Amino acid sequence: MQLGLVGLGKMGFNMRERLRAAGHEVIGYDRNPEVSDSESLADLVAKLEAPRTVWVMVPAGQPTRTVVAELGDLLSEGDLVIDGGNSRYTDDRGNADLLATSGVGYLDVGVSGGVWGRENGYGLMVGGDAKFVEHAMPIFDALRPEGPREEGFVHAGATGAGHYAKMVHNGIEYGLMQAYAEGYELLDAADEVTDVGGVLKAWTRGTVVRSWLLDLLVKALDEDPGLSQITGYVEDSGEGRWTVEEAINHSVPAPVISAALFARFASRQADSPAMQAVAALRNQFGGHAVHKAGPTSGSGETT
Amino acid sequence: MQLGLVGLGKMGFNMRERLRAAGHEVIGYDRNPEVSDSESLADLVAKLEAPRTVWVMVPAGQPTRTVVAELGDLLSEGDLVIDGGNSRYTDDRGNADLLATSGVGYLDVGVSGGVWGRENGYGLMVGGDAKFVEHAMPIFDALRPEGPREEGFVHAGATGAGHYAKMVHNGIEYGLMQAYAEGYELLDAADEVTDVGGVLKAWTRGTVVRSWLLDLLVKALDEDPGLSQITGYVEDSGEGRWTVEEAINHSVPAPVISAALFARFASRQADSPAMQAVAALRNQFGGHAVHKAGPTSGSGETT
Amino acid sequence: MQLGLVGLGKMGFNMRERLRAAGHEVIGYDRNPEVSDSESLADLVAKLEAPRTVWVMVPAGQPTRTVVAELGDLLSEGDLVIDGGNSRYTDDRGNADLLATSGVGYLDVGVSGGVWGRENGYGLMVGGDAKFVEHAMPIFDALRPEGPREEGFVHAGATGAGHYAKMVHNGIEYGLMQAYAEGYELLDAADEVTDVGGVLKAWTRGTVVRSWLLDLLVKALDEDPGLSQITGYVEDSGEGRWTVEEAINHSVPAPVISAALFARFASRQADSPAMQAVAALRNQFGGHAVHKAGPTSGSGETT
Amino acid sequence: MQLGLVGLGKMGFNMRERLRAAGHEVIGYDRNPEVSDSESLADLVAKLEAPRTVWVMVPAGQPTRTVVAELGDLLSEGDLVIDGGNSRYTDDRGNADLLATSGVGYLDVGVSGGVWGRENGYGLMVGGDAKFVEHAMPIFDALRPEGPREEGFVHAGATGAGHYAKMVHNGIEYGLMQAYAEGYELLDAADEVTDVGGVLKAWTRGTVVRSWLLDLLVKALDEDPGLSQITGYVEDSGEGRWTVEEAINHSVPAPVISAALFARFASRQADSPAMQAVAALRNQFGGHAVHKAGPTSGSGETT
Repeated sequence: MQLGLVGLGKMGFNMRERLRAAGHEVIGYDRNPEVSDSESLADLVAKLEAPRTVWVMVPAGQPTRTVVAELGDLLSEGDLVIDGGNSRYTDDRGNADLLATSGVGYLDVGVSGGVWGRENGYGLMVGGDAKFVEHAMPIFDALRPEGPREEGFVHAGATGAGHYAKMVHNGIEYGLMQAYAEGYELLDAADEVTDVGGVLKAWTRGTVVRSWLLDLLVKALDEDPGLSQITGYVEDSGEGRWTVEEAINHSVPAPVISAALFARFASRQADSPAMQAVAALRNQFGGHAVHKAGPTSGSGETT
Repeated sequence: MQLGLVGLGKMGFNMRERLRAAGHEVIGYDRNPEVSDSESLADLVAKLEAPRTVWVMVPAGQPTRTVVAELGDLLSEGDLVIDGGNSRYTDDRGNADLLATSGVGYLDVGVSGGVWGRENGYGLMVGGDAKFVEHAMPIFDALRPEGPREEGFVHAGATGAGHYAKMVHNGIEYGLMQAYAEGYELLDAADEVTDVGGVLKAWTRGTVVRSWLLDLLVKALDEDPGLSQITGYVEDSGEGRWTVEEAINHSVPAPVISAALFARFASRQADSPAMQAVAALRNQFGGHAVHKAGPTSGSGETT
Repeated sequence: MQLGLVGLGKMGFNMRERLRAAGHEVIGYDRNPEVSDSESLADLVAKLEAPRTVWVMVPAGQPTRTVVAELGDLLSEGDLVIDGGNSRYTDDRGNADLLATSGVGYLDVGVSGGVWGRENGYGLMVGGDAKFVEHAMPIFDALRPEGPREEGFVHAGATGAGHYAKMVHNGIEYGLMQAYAEGYELLDAADEVTDVGGVLKAWTRGTVVRSWLLDLLVKALDEDPGLSQITGYVEDSGEGRWTVEEAINHSVPAPVISAALFARFASRQADSPAMQAVAALRNQFGGHAVHKAGPTSGSGETT
Repeated sequence: MQLGLVGLGKMGFNMRERLRAAGHEVIGYDRNPEVSDSESLADLVAKLEAPRTVWVMVPAGQPTRTVVAELGDLLSEGDLVIDGGNSRYTDDRGNADLLATSGVGYLDVGVSGGVWGRENGYGLMVGGDAKFVEHAMPIFDALRPEGPREEGFVHAGATGAGHYAKMVHNGIEYGLMQAYAEGYELLDAADEVTDVGGVLKAWTRGTVVRSWLLDLLVKALDEDPGLSQITGYVEDSGEGRWTVEEAINHSVPAPVISAALFARFASRQADSPAMQAVAALRNQFGGHAVHKAGPTSGSGETT
């Protein structure tokens, strides 16, 4: 089928490729004219035949909300907008209601798979009305991995359910990564194990901990043994925070996901005010030596 | 090749099957005569041709140490003992030294794969001398999964390295399981997602969080939707504790693995003395109502 | 000076007593006529001489917002409203703006001290304009503990700062209580220490961990040795959640405060869906026995 | 009474002062002749009248064990050794048994109070036989704070109980300090609160979180506003590790104390291998930019 695709970054670009390889007609729009198939959102909409389906794949938050609002002005009754970005699920109701005033449908889709999705397919979690889901199913079938539909696709519930599921997916992802990372650090610290990379590789088949993330960690260590080319500075893009906030909203204990989130926060601190306070306290009651700040001292070094 | 196998429980029994299917001659010994191929350890040793290789697959701790010591008395120079159980790595040095006094070799092997190993193969992490590893390689090759040897087998280092790697493997496993579990609970608590099992199944292909553990969780939910047939009481078998203790020994932060361990401890408490203390404190300073203990009140219920 | 006081529950009632003991004229209003000095909010306002100061001490959220809005209708230019409840700091800007349209001032005050405040005085954290702070200072001086003003009172910043400081105060409180509680549980579990209550009491002077909360824990154990009259079911009233959410907003690691919050969530669960999932996973891969749910089984008991 | 005191460092020196001020005769020994009252352990013992009481106040572990063993050789039946250092409680049984072979008694004493103990008195937790406790009571009464004996002293149980209680005391201390520290960092990060030091000071009277540690944090901030003279590098001296290990031994959840311990570990890392692994994973699956290590990049800085 024909699809308009707004946003041709790392994810959108690859999705266009996968969809075209599956025989769909994709007309893309991106502010970058080198990758865009149309000159503007209006031009994109004009190039599509009604009823139109437009997939939005731009950064979450204001950028997505803005594109959705503009599409609300450009599209017509019977058209459909799909937000495939990492929007917070709380944005979906507003988007759906806004589009509904023009008779335009809305689906929220969580998309997982990263840069490997073009080749492997993308895991898809969809929220919204069943009739819209059915309408877009050829697109979902092309994007999702080979195999039974239900192993790479789910209609998770009403509006917001797709992004909610993707949020939790990413929260879990934080926990999984941190679990492997702690184990890696311990193997690395211990004298007993002399082939850390070999141990991780030996876990990739048959073991209880085998997973795609483990495969990627093995690949990373193959490319950069000891990870000497990378610092332990880790960004977070929102879903982990939202997951912990949702856990709080529902009184669900989330010690692992929150610990993974806080480890990222700490990884980005040149120095920790909290640990300065602890050091100050130890100095106060015990006369314990402290590491004085100074022009020649780095984080964590004595002077 | 010929192998003596001591311990024919869930793991040992399946390993014997897999080894025999691969054409090896396995003579097993177990206290349960229904599964045993020999009448005693001495009988087992007598049935093996020198140089003998005996794989020990009995519970960690005293049972394993006892069997190893008995084998030290029964075996001769040039024989080899392999401890494939979940022994703490600190036991390995003692075992190896004890056997060395009789000229008997020793390998420690971490084995992962659970009840599925018979079919899928077992991930193997081996510690000890290279000459012993080479000698037992036909056994390792039969036990490990199909595919490149290094993706299911590693000679991780000297004596103790195999069990060390297995210990960390299990520590990671605790963290992974808890991460999925927290996400599952949140999906379950949220109104937005109406098909929790479907969401988990849709993650099994293409997504970043796909893994064998996820496959198992999907299977568990297929068999028992809502997990209504199971209570949240979770045992632990030692490796998670040892992992946290090793992390402490090496000053490695392990917030996720320790959180997963503590969640298991808490799952087994009918009531928590710590939370009784917190409730008592809130009552003391704020006059907050407490839940009084009584004959008709269960854990977590008001009276 | 003269003060109107809305809300005569555990906190408001005691504050009225303390203020009156200090010579202030307090006219209270509460829906409960047995403790109220006036028949309605309107009656309360009518009884006060301009410029009026009305302290609101009702539950946070909608109740407080409603009372503030009603006071906005009843009060006049030059009057002052003080919200001394545990409102979320994000409510304060709205309250202040609403009252400002009538020329009425607003202060937000975090009040700590619980039921002991009547005797010991209350710690006060105030947000808002300095002129209003100055106006209400006689009230603050009467409510705060004896001693230097700055050791029981702070003008913490502009509107919202008082409740922000109180929120963090309570977040810290969660962490402190959980720290003592974990230590208490460990002492209780260990055979080595035969006089747990005596140990806690011995910490109340001279030690590094001495504190008011410790005094209260000692008192609780004196009154109920072994805490046998209380279950470990712990409510939370919002500030701990908000603290963790604010920590997330500011990318501040909060492992201790969040752990304390999650321990409360877990304390209220009859069974944990997360731990059911972990139990199910262990059963899937290892054939580990599970605790089956059933009519005769309680949480944490085998069947 | 007369007391021999081995070890005149920060703690021992101050304790000698306090004991002498209370009228006791203290003969000290330290390797540093400037503070020592005797030339050797043997000289110290020779200077004491039987039955002798010798208090050992040297670093925990091998130094203490060595001094105790030497005293076993030098002392006679009816004498008493008191280990007042931060020894692991597991050392006490061995020390007591060793001394018992010479008929020498043994007490283990946890001492809290830091450098302030000289003035305020020390909190004392004692393990061992009641007859030895009674014998040394004049010393304990002089060292403990003014007030009822049970508020600064406890005979906690048999041999080991004193150090066990001190271990838990310090574990709690870790949690308390981290709770205040997290709150401090959040106050510092928020725009709402413009007088962070003032807020902490206002908590020192009347509030629920008032404590001696809070007083010290206020003092530290008075001396160094913003803590600009100190880095967030925090040592740990063992008791926190032991507390977590004991919690594991007893299956007691210790999320707060362990989080506080791990925060210290992390504070000492120039870079975190675990977070390098997480960064590498994000790069692998998402093409997320990483911070490359390089000669000009510091921890946590982009290049």
